[in-house]
Amino acid sequence: MEISPQHTVVGFIGTGVMGNSMAGHILNAGYELHVYTRTRSKADEICKKGAIWEETIASLAGKCHVLITMVGLPTDVESIYLGKEGIIETASPGTIAVDMTTSSPALAVKIYEAAAIRSIPALDAPVSGGDIGARNGTLSIMVGGDERIFEMVMPLFDLMGKNILLQGGAGSGQHTKMANQIVIAAGMVGVCESLAYAQKSGLDPELVLKSIGSGAAGSWTLNNLGPRIIKGDFAPGFYVRHFIKDMAIAIESAQEMGLDTPGLALAKSLYETLAQQGYENDGTQALYRLLI
Amino acid sequence: MEISPQHTVVGFIGTGVMGNSMAGHILNAGYELHVYTRTRSKADEICKKGAIWEETIASLAGKCHVLITMVGLPTDVESIYLGKEGIIETASPGTIAVDMTTSSPALAVKIYEAAAIRSIPALDAPVSGGDIGARNGTLSIMVGGDERIFEMVMPLFDLMGKNILLQGGAGSGQHTKMANQIVIAAGMVGVCESLAYAQKSGLDPELVLKSIGSGAAGSWTLNNLGPRIIKGDFAPGFYVRHFIKDMAIAIESAQEMGLDTPGLALAKSLYETLAQQGYENDGTQALYRLLI
Repeated sequence: MEISPQHTVVGFIGTGVMGNSMAGHILNAGYELHVYTRTRSKADEICKKGAIWEETIASLAGKCHVLITMVGLPTDVESIYLGKEGIIETASPGTIAVDMTTSSPALAVKIYEAAAIRSIPALDAPVSGGDIGARNGTLSIMVGGDERIFEMVMPLFDLMGKNILLQGGAGSGQHTKMANQIVIAAGMVGVCESLAYAQKSGLDPELVLKSIGSGAAGSWTLNNLGPRIIKGDFAPGFYVRHFIKDMAIAIESAQEMGLDTPGLALAKSLYETLAQQGYENDGTQALYRLLI
Repeated sequence: MEISPQHTVVGFIGTGVMGNSMAGHILNAGYELHVYTRTRSKADEICKKGAIWEETIASLAGKCHVLITMVGLPTDVESIYLGKEGIIETASPGTIAVDMTTSSPALAVKIYEAAAIRSIPALDAPVSGGDIGARNGTLSIMVGGDERIFEMVMPLFDLMGKNILLQGGAGSGQHTKMANQIVIAAGMVGVCESLAYAQKSGLDPELVLKSIGSGAAGSWTLNNLGPRIIKGDFAPGFYVRHFIKDMAIAIESAQEMGLDTPGLALAKSLYETLAQQGYENDGTQALYRLLI
């Protein structure tokens, strides 16, 4: 099977901020696209552009050659794939299933194995790059699964991302995304503490960024979220509540392999305090609020 | 007073790895350079190139228009400046004193004030960029003190660095350097935890770096020290024991201003454990040893 607009019908489950942009690229490339999402109104925009609404996962799964899922929590992923009337129960053998949600590596393996029994090849393919990366088709896509299937799906990945790598077998995409989030977690604590220190010591934080942003302290977080923190702009690029979800998956996964991650644990507990204070829908840079 | 090789005699105290390279640039530019360092053998190299050895701080201070210090601990800085036969006691009025050691902001203010009474203008001007930055003359220099003095010393700073900024009054250079180290401290925890996670989960860490190094997790630490960690190369760019010194200054300084820095505190305690295990002369990336 060659994946192309001429040969392939694509199904997309989950048309939130990220999924809407990602599915849009597939539609724009000329694919027949069927969509399902829990809150129907979130599919209105993509349906106006030509996507076909399906009332259930089963009706969507029965019509498509490739199914892409981009939903919220691992529990959502689990019910969509493994639940009654879910993908594995209802998709035809040979359908390829690609979960792009950031979810549990262990669940990705479970889905891969359950799907394999019904001859449904599955990939885990979480992304980084946020809403802007999704909109511009420049996401990093970290993939776990079989190489042959990865190669087959590449024409679709190419529409959504730029840095697309097969990291290994099932679960490896999710593990790589966890590695990504673990760097960011403790790193964000450092950036927020540093800018709080600069503020409290009477320095001009913008001038401090000019001294430290391009050297050994330099990071995407410091140089992209630092200026927003200084302006008091805590609008979400990436939601606090989503980051807490990711850190919970990472900690559980690290514990399963006997790895201690004190920096990650600290970051998660700080973010939980922040969420309890009512800032769960702020962007991750709002951690600064807790320190100043 | 214009600072130039024709008009200015420079004194340099502390010719360790960093100081030796920095003093070398001043010598190469044609300045008459007098040097003093606690361990005389460490000045052999620069003296062979034409620097003039002085037996005491007092004899050096009496002969030079600008004094630069680049030593170890805040206690060293304190005794060199404020101690008996130290710079403030022995330098002629009008001599400019520039401390480039990473040291305490509060001490920098104390030195500035004590020096001012004897008409010795003082700057705090710590650097970042490490041994390579010192060798290549590409250090970031973060300066605190009076603008007029900063401008006067610029010809010398220009020989040693590239990103040279006056951050504010006395102590502001040290505060900025602390902000720099605070970002790095928690950030290093995140990088080491992430690579330990990648390793333990059976991923190929080099391939993981290709997925995560250029996105939102990207940082100088991840992209420069990550490859060394993966190779098991823990040779010092920046020593564990020096980093612990810096973090101790930062924590003390943060406490003085009532700022809580849990990420910095965690990093310091992890590094202290690492040092207790005998790795104090490894590079900072050796934190990885503690996690794997």
